[in-house]
Amino acid sequence: MDRWEEIDTYAKQWIKEAGSRIIGSLSSPLRIETKSNRNDLVTNIDKETEQFLIQKIRTTFPGHRILGEEGFGEDVKDAGGIIWILDPIDGTVNFVHQKVNFMISIGVYENGEGRLGYIYDVVRQELYSAWKGRGAYFNGARLPKLKENRLEDTILALNPFCIVENRIIDPKKLASLVRNVRGTRCYGSAALELAYVAAGRLDAYVTMRLSPWDFAAGKVIVEEVGGIVTDIYGRPLNILENSSVFVSKPKLHETILERYLKE
Amino acid sequence: MDRWEEIDTYAKQWIKEAGSRIIGSLSSPLRIETKSNRNDLVTNIDKETEQFLIQKIRTTFPGHRILGEEGFGEDVKDAGGIIWILDPIDGTVNFVHQKVNFMISIGVYENGEGRLGYIYDVVRQELYSAWKGRGAYFNGARLPKLKENRLEDTILALNPFCIVENRIIDPKKLASLVRNVRGTRCYGSAALELAYVAAGRLDAYVTMRLSPWDFAAGKVIVEEVGGIVTDIYGRPLNILENSSVFVSKPKLHETILERYLKE
Repeated sequence: MDRWEEIDTYAKQWIKEAGSRIIGSLSSPLRIETKSNRNDLVTNIDKETEQFLIQKIRTTFPGHRILGEEGFGEDVKDAGGIIWILDPIDGTVNFVHQKVNFMISIGVYENGEGRLGYIYDVVRQELYSAWKGRGAYFNGARLPKLKENRLEDTILALNPFCIVENRIIDPKKLASLVRNVRGTRCYGSAALELAYVAAGRLDAYVTMRLSPWDFAAGKVIVEEVGGIVTDIYGRPLNILENSSVFVSKPKLHETILERYLKE
Repeated sequence: MDRWEEIDTYAKQWIKEAGSRIIGSLSSPLRIETKSNRNDLVTNIDKETEQFLIQKIRTTFPGHRILGEEGFGEDVKDAGGIIWILDPIDGTVNFVHQKVNFMISIGVYENGEGRLGYIYDVVRQELYSAWKGRGAYFNGARLPKLKENRLEDTILALNPFCIVENRIIDPKKLASLVRNVRGTRCYGSAALELAYVAAGRLDAYVTMRLSPWDFAAGKVIVEEVGGIVTDIYGRPLNILENSSVFVSKPKLHETILERYLKE
């Protein structure tokens, strides 16, 4: 087994183990705290899951660095070497309120380039994964390349809050986009929304602010089926910085960018 | 077995049989047509599923009437007697684009009153059901009564399109509601959204226009866990008429109605 095969094998094993631990905890009472604002939730399970994954990575790959949402990894200032980017529970509000529709997200990057991506729907036991250059998979079955579609046939993921107010783009532009697509959806988990684009269940996804752990895995998976992942102005994402994110198929990405997003 | 036990037993059996038939058809090409507008889709599977259910009902309960989305039932003008209200595939756009997140919805009404309700998540094989006065169930496990929560902790289902434009309510009022809740979701299936309210996964659901087959089953299920189902002005729904729909827990229903929805 070469190094990347080893990383891939362990990552898949650990993400499923972490998922089983979360399922095992679902009947116990949660300790819920807030972070940046009253709707930015974290639970003991987010923290325990991140610590579980970090312990595995550190023991097996002591030379790798780790960037984790809950802060148990390193303070990563540069993209050099191999970095694991972890979101132990993406969609914590869903986890707390719904006990479904939350994902574990793991991206493995080398010198700033995505190499491996994993998004695990814990309750549904659905694993979306990708290895740069070797394809994307859904529960082990290869995902086909994305097919283009017309703007008016588009299913778009977008948080209604973006149309109400945001500091990044004129809500009227997004309102006009919402009016012209076939339908909009909002699931409350960026990783789920990225995985859905990769699986062809959504045609585009626009969001105003994500952190690296929200998009690190999804970017690798979406790109591996031919999708384009940028910020809402069409610029490449920096894997160490917060950013708006806009994901779609190449032609549809260009159309939406030109007509609705660009200044 | 008394008459309602018999209806309940058959309804559960038929909805699962219909679901299996849909799953069996997923790999065959769909014939897709449009109805009232280019985003109002219907497929051969919607039609075949409705015909399958109607054939079962007519053979077993020849005295009952049937109101079905695809029009293979009767032209029902009054609510007298026992009426089955069917949506063979609720969330046809999801069915076509995602192959998940679509439901079979069956409500059984007697003289205009909901008696039985069934919402079946075909792909997940999750059955939400209720019998008026005997409780609501999720895959056979009793659903608890809904717990009240504060407006600011609310997860609200709402189509972003409502905030962009609609002829029924000032979008600014809904925008203000979106700003004040914890989060919004949009799944593209009214039956799923009603089932999620019943299961406590959503706290409220607001929508501008549904048909009887969209809400007939969900109304019975939500009411059986103590939820309130009205139009967006707080008026009771007529089971034979299209309507806006607003669903929540009693106190939260009153709060949202008074602050955001009433004229």
